[in-house]
Amino acid sequence: MLTQEKNAFVLSPDDESLQELLRLIQRIDDVKAFGDLAEWDMNTQMPDGAGSIRGNQMASMQGVLHEFRTDPRIGELLNTLEPRIGQPRYSDADRGLVRIARRMYDQATKLPRELVEEMARVGASSFDAWRRARERNDFASFAPWLERTIALQREVADRLGYEDTRYDALLDLYEPGMNVKRLDALFAPVREVSVSLLKRIQASGHEIDDSCLQGDFDPQQQVALSRVILERMGYDFSRGAVAESPHPFTTSLGSPFDVRLTVHPDRHYIQAAVMAAIHEGGHALYEQGSAESLARTPVAGGVSMGVHESQSRLWENAIGRSEAFWQGQYDAVREAFPQHFASVDVATFTRALNKVQPSLIRIEADEVTYNLHIIVRYELEKAMVNGQVAVESLPGLWNRTYKDYLGIEPPRDSEGILQDIHWTSGFGYFPTYTLGNLYGAQIYATLRRAFPDFDERLSRGDTAFILNWLREQLYVAGSTYMPEDLMKRVTGEAPNPRFFTTYLTSKFENIYGL
Amino acid sequence: MLTQEKNAFVLSPDDESLQELLRLIQRIDDVKAFGDLAEWDMNTQMPDGAGSIRGNQMASMQGVLHEFRTDPRIGELLNTLEPRIGQPRYSDADRGLVRIARRMYDQATKLPRELVEEMARVGASSFDAWRRARERNDFASFAPWLERTIALQREVADRLGYEDTRYDALLDLYEPGMNVKRLDALFAPVREVSVSLLKRIQASGHEIDDSCLQGDFDPQQQVALSRVILERMGYDFSRGAVAESPHPFTTSLGSPFDVRLTVHPDRHYIQAAVMAAIHEGGHALYEQGSAESLARTPVAGGVSMGVHESQSRLWENAIGRSEAFWQGQYDAVREAFPQHFASVDVATFTRALNKVQPSLIRIEADEVTYNLHIIVRYELEKAMVNGQVAVESLPGLWNRTYKDYLGIEPPRDSEGILQDIHWTSGFGYFPTYTLGNLYGAQIYATLRRAFPDFDERLSRGDTAFILNWLREQLYVAGSTYMPEDLMKRVTGEAPNPRFFTTYLTSKFENIYGL
Repeated sequence: MLTQEKNAFVLSPDDESLQELLRLIQRIDDVKAFGDLAEWDMNTQMPDGAGSIRGNQMASMQGVLHEFRTDPRIGELLNTLEPRIGQPRYSDADRGLVRIARRMYDQATKLPRELVEEMARVGASSFDAWRRARERNDFASFAPWLERTIALQREVADRLGYEDTRYDALLDLYEPGMNVKRLDALFAPVREVSVSLLKRIQASGHEIDDSCLQGDFDPQQQVALSRVILERMGYDFSRGAVAESPHPFTTSLGSPFDVRLTVHPDRHYIQAAVMAAIHEGGHALYEQGSAESLARTPVAGGVSMGVHESQSRLWENAIGRSEAFWQGQYDAVREAFPQHFASVDVATFTRALNKVQPSLIRIEADEVTYNLHIIVRYELEKAMVNGQVAVESLPGLWNRTYKDYLGIEPPRDSEGILQDIHWTSGFGYFPTYTLGNLYGAQIYATLRRAFPDFDERLSRGDTAFILNWLREQLYVAGSTYMPEDLMKRVTGEAPNPRFFTTYLTSKFENIYGL
Repeated sequence: MLTQEKNAFVLSPDDESLQELLRLIQRIDDVKAFGDLAEWDMNTQMPDGAGSIRGNQMASMQGVLHEFRTDPRIGELLNTLEPRIGQPRYSDADRGLVRIARRMYDQATKLPRELVEEMARVGASSFDAWRRARERNDFASFAPWLERTIALQREVADRLGYEDTRYDALLDLYEPGMNVKRLDALFAPVREVSVSLLKRIQASGHEIDDSCLQGDFDPQQQVALSRVILERMGYDFSRGAVAESPHPFTTSLGSPFDVRLTVHPDRHYIQAAVMAAIHEGGHALYEQGSAESLARTPVAGGVSMGVHESQSRLWENAIGRSEAFWQGQYDAVREAFPQHFASVDVATFTRALNKVQPSLIRIEADEVTYNLHIIVRYELEKAMVNGQVAVESLPGLWNRTYKDYLGIEPPRDSEGILQDIHWTSGFGYFPTYTLGNLYGAQIYATLRRAFPDFDERLSRGDTAFILNWLREQLYVAGSTYMPEDLMKRVTGEAPNPRFFTTYLTSKFENIYGL
């Protein structure tokens, strides 16, 4: 248990080099927080006419951060500290700080500013091209930009260095310590089980009716309901804020003290706002749970995209789509929309939230098909970055893989390869979504073992025991431990896809009566 | 006319030193914008629990700004540029940039970082002490902090340098080019005319009934009404945002592209939100009116606190408390609160907005007594800074001066010397409020001369002709010209208190039938 280790998350005050490093890192963390605030503002409040000047301001900020991150003094201090940081007189957080500072310093010094700026420029143009291409269903007009992004991402990989394949270097940016070889091994059983489970569900002839989630739901009432659910999950509003934005997201302006999230209600579909609130709430609880002693350092907050996604998916899917959870929370839904839900019982509501239906669009996917969407993208990304495929053949490859995995084929590229924004900026991020599902299921299994009366407590409306356990076991550590190390500490073993495949199979065999 | 001078507000692209200076200044302006955004956020959205970490982040930001502002390269470039910037090949904006950069550089290099940090610390503690002292009506507990602030402000003045008195140095921080001698001359007739006008009003026995402004006004409806009035004034919502905060304020996050303001509705008193919206709207129109070519430099935006206040007071008082204005806008008030205002006519509404009544509280003061509140504070500040008074004798001095000027005496210090927050941070700001009234009246007189049918147009609901004139004559220049120079350009003469005393006397003789 993490909290058994006393002072593990307190930074040592008695080492001058460490203190000097800390001050340099704090300054970077503080300045970065202003950039994060500006992003929050851009998504929630900034007037349209300010876009261009804000772009210039952000560029200046990035320049300042680059200057600070490449300060040669950081390199000197790291060289001094690294040989001795393993000694027992240092805390785990000290080691985390040195590890993350090294990573940041190496990345910043290995990637020249011109390359970073070129990536920002190409990213902006590529985004425009993608938006137009998707509107017109015209992959050919986006292809040159994708080609340019591939070239830049390869250069990034070459400069950062890698052991086996270029893609390893990109993956490591989002999931420190992960590589293609291990990821392939983790994903193979997920693909297999998902494909076979989907076939069994389709063969069963069972269909779930989710019409109870559709209707006319006042958006402000949905936001109010989202706030109630977040409050009940234990989201701390005195250290956060909820706003609306076109795409829901969570951001930290200084964990654990200022962690905000957004929702985006869909007037005709209540699931969008409510489940996004629980999803973003999971991200936010993770950030709000860091030890206060880690504040103003990059050791506060989530350690990787995968671990982050494990918390959003754990809360959203394992907890938030369970009947036990809604037995405890359904009163809030009924109170928000009394007429609509008067004749809908909890079981019907929960079943609707778990409807499986292969679709072309990733962000609308259910738990069974979701990872297949990710694995398609992961396979294509590897091919692009490691250089085994021509850009013009990508749409065909995409469509064939969808046919193989999900049994459906996009009628046009705008619903196929052009649907996601991600490839306007780079590669390596997508796989963390599925990694999150794997980590999440493994942590969920541990959590349930710790509480034999898990469902009973949950159905009484109690979620505090979950949050407390996650805080003590996981959240408090922030980024102190590498993802794999963290998984071992929390669950007793390295990431293992068995937990997810078991969870998925058992849950949906039960729901679909297989 | 300002806009006759072609390219006056375009920065010269063909001087390498100027371009280098511009890049350094732009970076400072960009980084400062993030600090301003953080202040906006702190007042409108930041969760309570984030106060402490935000304080640390702001301190880091101030440190970064100080580093950038004292960059010796700026000093070198200024030394190179100053001898030649008067040449005709440079624009007025070039000269403005060099002037403001010199001011910034000198202030930053003359005030050591330790002093600035000490001022921030003392300011924070002084604020806490002031809040407690006001609650308990206990000036003695605030006195040591005021003493400390006086000592620090004297040190600031000594380090910045001054010709005549220490107070000149502080004044110049807020109103470049102003000094005590000139201010005394400007304020003397204002005091005299205000005191005598107040006595005549009181002797007249006339009383204005302002009960129509009181009632139960839904706060959200008040905000909506404020937005309507702002829109009609010409505030550009595509380059701004309106939010709520405990104290109304305006801030620029990058003029003219992102200028935001807040309101604070009082449920029982409609004047609070509506007149504050017009006041803040005046500030915002000034910032939104800067030439786009000046963006990302300190030449964009208002040149001084006095000129800024001239615009807020011009819009709020000269325009916004005139019957002609409300003849054109009253429909919005009636539409927002139909029941309440059904039986109140425009004349009654406007008269209520102009009720004169000596009170102890500055922020509730009418136009006749407002400047007397300011002049009391100005006299006391001079005495404190120039060292002619002991802190413990200040409450008595305050009370006597109130008796002299306004004919009333505070029953306790919490309604007297302890009412304002300003003295927790420093001196020199208060006088700019009255300066704003003087400048405003002078500009207003020029504006009316330009439009013989002024009231007629205004009463038809037209305000665009006013905004256009102010933009072309004044706003477009941003901070290109020093305040006095600007006043000469706009009004044809240096600041002259006669415009204000004439405006005030004629307006209130008319209202009170003297």
